[in-house]
Amino acid sequence: MEKNIKMVVSYDGTGYHGFQRQKNALTVQEVLEKSLAKIYRYPVILQASSRTDTGVHARGQVVNFRSPFSIPEEKVALALNALLPRDIRVLKSEEVPLYFHSRFDAVEKLYTYLVDRGETLSVFHRLYALHYPRPLDLEALQEGARCLLGRHDFTSFCASGSQAKSREREIREARWEEEGPFLRFVVRGDGFLYHMVRIIVGTLLRAGQGKLPPGGVAFVLGARDRKLAGPTAPARGLCLEKVFFKG
Amino acid sequence: MEKNIKMVVSYDGTGYHGFQRQKNALTVQEVLEKSLAKIYRYPVILQASSRTDTGVHARGQVVNFRSPFSIPEEKVALALNALLPRDIRVLKSEEVPLYFHSRFDAVEKLYTYLVDRGETLSVFHRLYALHYPRPLDLEALQEGARCLLGRHDFTSFCASGSQAKSREREIREARWEEEGPFLRFVVRGDGFLYHMVRIIVGTLLRAGQGKLPPGGVAFVLGARDRKLAGPTAPARGLCLEKVFFKG
Repeated sequence: MEKNIKMVVSYDGTGYHGFQRQKNALTVQEVLEKSLAKIYRYPVILQASSRTDTGVHARGQVVNFRSPFSIPEEKVALALNALLPRDIRVLKSEEVPLYFHSRFDAVEKLYTYLVDRGETLSVFHRLYALHYPRPLDLEALQEGARCLLGRHDFTSFCASGSQAKSREREIREARWEEEGPFLRFVVRGDGFLYHMVRIIVGTLLRAGQGKLPPGGVAFVLGARDRKLAGPTAPARGLCLEKVFFKG
Repeated sequence: MEKNIKMVVSYDGTGYHGFQRQKNALTVQEVLEKSLAKIYRYPVILQASSRTDTGVHARGQVVNFRSPFSIPEEKVALALNALLPRDIRVLKSEEVPLYFHSRFDAVEKLYTYLVDRGETLSVFHRLYALHYPRPLDLEALQEGARCLLGRHDFTSFCASGSQAKSREREIREARWEEEGPFLRFVVRGDGFLYHMVRIIVGTLLRAGQGKLPPGGVAFVLGARDRKLAGPTAPARGLCLEKVFFKG
């Protein structure tokens, strides 16, 4: 009997050219599929909730695959972790109905973006945060984040190269949290365009520096013009925290 | 005029064969001295408070050196950070009296050792913590730590190869802190023998697992025999947090 196995995967994206398999670059998908093929002695194709970019991290990427024969599903995580490099870990493996699909059934995703506010870069966070020691107005950051809430056309926050048909997305949570010398941007929505979170962060940081007038983020959003938004923040601060599914 | 410059240095020890200069291996000292030589166009020799081992980290290593001519001392940190790799940062640079010596004047050091208690290894802490998912009795860990307080002969917790004349040291603080899925061992003393903190952690973890009888840590300490202590815990969990000086 064929089974459908769902897994929650965490990885440090530093050493990978993103999640999705590519011809001439090492990706998380390739490493996972190769380890699965060793366990099953059979080629395995993964579906993933999100294609994270080069250098982007995950605490809760979700993947699924058809398991060609019967290894107890809860043992798959243990077997994989014994084969995988230490920068990729499977947190959970379980059987799900055959119709479950990691990408098409995802209804919401939660991302975070970490900013290191220390005067000097934290060496322990250099791969996981953007070092940004310039003065920031936290209230301007929060106000900018609040402007994004709700259903909008996010063209201004979408990199060229996006193949999305519609650029409407709904943002259900967007706020900054202080954690010692760090600021963490938390954003949850029904979907995200290409580079969307990183362009949002780049724009909010510009607002936080006082380089956008009050109401500037709402103006940028309404203009539907990528050129008005801020720069794309570096990949290393971004982490896919969690994927939500129906029911 | 020759000046004496003191610096506080943080580094991720993963990529280095410890702090102290070696002939055929890259060390933190070599990288710092080479960058200093570029700034001063003159060879610079560093003195450091602690020789951290291969893979051991630091948040507060202290070094000092004679500055051959006059760059404003507070600018040295900025100039160095512009040259150094991102896994070494100078947090502070200041002028100190000519007689100040990082190693001989240090009166106390604070180390931490991080243990990842998560069922699955945290990929983001894989270089900074020991993953130890086995059951641990926190009270046994704390009780073991308390036994070490005070002035003792720490021969049982000293690796062979130590050149220390006396193996007496005074431990002034030794306790475990819970931080979410992590345990952090905090230890402060007037000095530490070769591998001492790592052997202490290996022994306390053994006690926490119930593999030493109650009073076992005190017994090991009193026996002055390395063979009775636990294994040397891996370097990656250890971090030199702070060095204290007189006055």
